[in-house]
Amino acid sequence: MAARSGEFELIARHFAPIAGRDPAALSLKDDAAIFSPPAGCEVVVTTDALVADVHFRSIDAPELIAKKVLRVNLSDLAAMGATPGGVVLSAGYNRDLSDDWIERFAKGFGEDCAAYDVSLWGGDTVATPGPTFFSLTAFGYVPAGQALRRDRARPGDVLAVTGSLGDAALGLAVLNGEFPDLLPAHADFLKDRYWLPRPRISESSTCVSVNRSLAAMDISDGLAGDCRKICSASNVGLEINRDAIPLSDAAKAVLQQDPNQWQRILAGGDDYELLIAGPRDAIANLGGIVRVIGVVTDQDGVVSLIGPDNKMAELAEGGFDHFK
Amino acid sequence: MAARSGEFELIARHFAPIAGRDPAALSLKDDAAIFSPPAGCEVVVTTDALVADVHFRSIDAPELIAKKVLRVNLSDLAAMGATPGGVVLSAGYNRDLSDDWIERFAKGFGEDCAAYDVSLWGGDTVATPGPTFFSLTAFGYVPAGQALRRDRARPGDVLAVTGSLGDAALGLAVLNGEFPDLLPAHADFLKDRYWLPRPRISESSTCVSVNRSLAAMDISDGLAGDCRKICSASNVGLEINRDAIPLSDAAKAVLQQDPNQWQRILAGGDDYELLIAGPRDAIANLGGIVRVIGVVTDQDGVVSLIGPDNKMAELAEGGFDHFK
Repeated sequence: MAARSGEFELIARHFAPIAGRDPAALSLKDDAAIFSPPAGCEVVVTTDALVADVHFRSIDAPELIAKKVLRVNLSDLAAMGATPGGVVLSAGYNRDLSDDWIERFAKGFGEDCAAYDVSLWGGDTVATPGPTFFSLTAFGYVPAGQALRRDRARPGDVLAVTGSLGDAALGLAVLNGEFPDLLPAHADFLKDRYWLPRPRISESSTCVSVNRSLAAMDISDGLAGDCRKICSASNVGLEINRDAIPLSDAAKAVLQQDPNQWQRILAGGDDYELLIAGPRDAIANLGGIVRVIGVVTDQDGVVSLIGPDNKMAELAEGGFDHFK
Repeated sequence: MAARSGEFELIARHFAPIAGRDPAALSLKDDAAIFSPPAGCEVVVTTDALVADVHFRSIDAPELIAKKVLRVNLSDLAAMGATPGGVVLSAGYNRDLSDDWIERFAKGFGEDCAAYDVSLWGGDTVATPGPTFFSLTAFGYVPAGQALRRDRARPGDVLAVTGSLGDAALGLAVLNGEFPDLLPAHADFLKDRYWLPRPRISESSTCVSVNRSLAAMDISDGLAGDCRKICSASNVGLEINRDAIPLSDAAKAVLQQDPNQWQRILAGGDDYELLIAGPRDAIANLGGIVRVIGVVTDQDGVVSLIGPDNKMAELAEGGFDHFK
């Protein structure tokens, strides 16, 4: 610890300026922060813990790590239809990390707090002999009773997703040296999708305004695993048309090189797109922000994948694809 | 990880039953929890991170560790005058910890959630190759505008504390093998004070009802250090009468063996008593729940200690006592 500033210095120097603009934070000088939801709104709260070299690559730029820590939590708020309000950040910095690393982390964190109009309300900063970890708790607001939920998918609903799937998992593979023959533009696109998820906040707010009975969640653990969570919460089954899954040009280029990469696209995590189920007309009202990829069935807990030539197989949690 | 259940199993088996009774938690099956403060109240939020063998002894009983993780955060709520509502728990379990350890941790956590009428609203459970860590975020409610704050001490106020000071630091010393000649009852008392802090929730709520302009904080880092935080937030000085500091019989017994232990009593952390400043009559109205230990001065940032024979010395952050 000798080479690094103490906890109070770190907070005052790097984090208090981020908190400065919101009175709720009490300048990070008190035991806690104080806030009130807007009239007619409920508070949505979510928390995610990330450990170095388990949930993020410690060799990546600290600014990028900071942004991911924030964004994965904002994505959980989006999954509930909530507008971000504030966050508290617990940070356990490995005791050999430099002041410079922490300063760069705080810089990235502050940039994204500004970009997403989120306030830093407080936190805790400790030193650890182990891997650096972060635990962020995020607060958002949603009109009372209108939060999106996982348990509202009904047989006959259609299933839709935002954005494109699989990019983040392929980006991590690129970072680990796979697909060396990929065009640089494709490789850069995939890496960016791994580093910087885009929480689907405006899409989520459109879902709330279109129909309060939509089921939704964010795809953080991969399509295959997260589909099972919707099934389990709603007591339904899902039937997914593989060819309908939206793919980026970069992901298509990877699949051309290696069709086995479908497995990563189906099971890889970190996409943070929204998975939405609802009546066909409600989903149609969402317009171009989603693409329909399947239907909700009454086969409780069964997730099926329709592949090439209309062959159907069960989609295992690991995303293994039995069509080949 | 082979020997241990997965994240979802752990949550379903050990933590969902704790959350069961509160609809805000959505059975821990969704991306986030949803809650609303009672009418007329603001939300107070606080977070504390604890790392094994930095902030707690990994050899201690998991039930006790769980209770301390919860209680130190409830103490932060009490410091603001807030009534506890719910908590979210991020847990990073070392990957070699057994299911049994986690089950015992959850048992202790559940017992204390019930004892303090606090709901578990959610969290995140991950595995780490490093030391086990916990980051708890706690939410409480306080009537709007009536939170206790650190920045309200005024010259002429008196300074008071709840309970007795120094017990937890002495308890940790006992656990580490010091004071082997102490009576078993005294040793047990001190260890219990280290393991199981008593968040001063009812005392804090009395403070809010007696006078909304009291300054308060909880003594987590030791009297000497925490006094400086009140000074810094309120731009005042403090003058403390050492002989007025409330001591337990066990702490008095330690001092009889070794008067140098005043340093631990003045600077040792983990007591989680309340430090309160306010007008003399407001403090008197608190009755027997506090003891006056000094006065607030206009000597910005100066914390003085009046010792035996009315000798006065500056109380350094480390609590060194220059009277001997």
